[in-house]
Amino acid sequence: MAAEPIINSRQKEALINGIFTQVVCTAFSNHILVVLTQYGKIGTIISLLPDATFSDISKPLFTTKVLLGKDEGLTHVYDKNLVTFISQASGNRPVLLALALKKINIEGIKAMKEMIKSCQVW
Amino acid sequence: MAAEPIINSRQKEALINGIFTQVVCTAFSNHILVVLTQYGKIGTIISLLPDATFSDISKPLFTTKVLLGKDEGLTHVYDKNLVTFISQASGNRPVLLALALKKINIEGIKAMKEMIKSCQVW
Repeated sequence: MAAEPIINSRQKEALINGIFTQVVCTAFSNHILVVLTQYGKIGTIISLLPDATFSDISKPLFTTKVLLGKDEGLTHVYDKNLVTFISQASGNRPVLLALALKKINIEGIKAMKEMIKSCQVW
Repeated sequence: MAAEPIINSRQKEALINGIFTQVVCTAFSNHILVVLTQYGKIGTIISLLPDATFSDISKPLFTTKVLLGKDEGLTHVYDKNLVTFISQASGNRPVLLALALKKINIEGIKAMKEMIKSCQVW
């Protein structure tokens, strides 16, 4: 009875720093949607948008904006670290990231980025 | 190689008013996420939140808020018509709706609501 997927979506689960972590990546023509959660919740939603004007070295800059949830400085840092590469790899598409993490450190961010990479839909 | 779904998600496609329409419903513990698109795009994202204070007849009222995209009066009307029933059926969970429609009329809204119902994950 399983329906064939229509919209391209991939998901994965893993233990990161001993915490059960889930990721779901879905590709839309104008956005990549990434859900990264350690609570089974949606949490904070952050938009990452490549700027229309490029910098001197011809690489786009990125604007991050919290659409839902607490707007904290570190949230923007995590967002840029986790999903900027997706925008770069997908023809500068904006990325929506839903983030609900229990514990964050550099090793965790690296491991999560690898999880996201393994769910490539772009 | 198909991974077993971890986060509960269902999707469907149909012709509505002759237009190819896709819906994806995903359940999170604190939100239901519904993507309804006729462009393969994410479009406008609207949050539907049951009010903490109930009305006289003990039914919750709902607040709608556009998180991403153009904030038009009709968008809020469509949102309430399409997904209020989900919140009511899922223990008053908030609903996030991503909406990208080409053509909207009453018959279309009814047909879309049936499509969403057929992707029940709550």
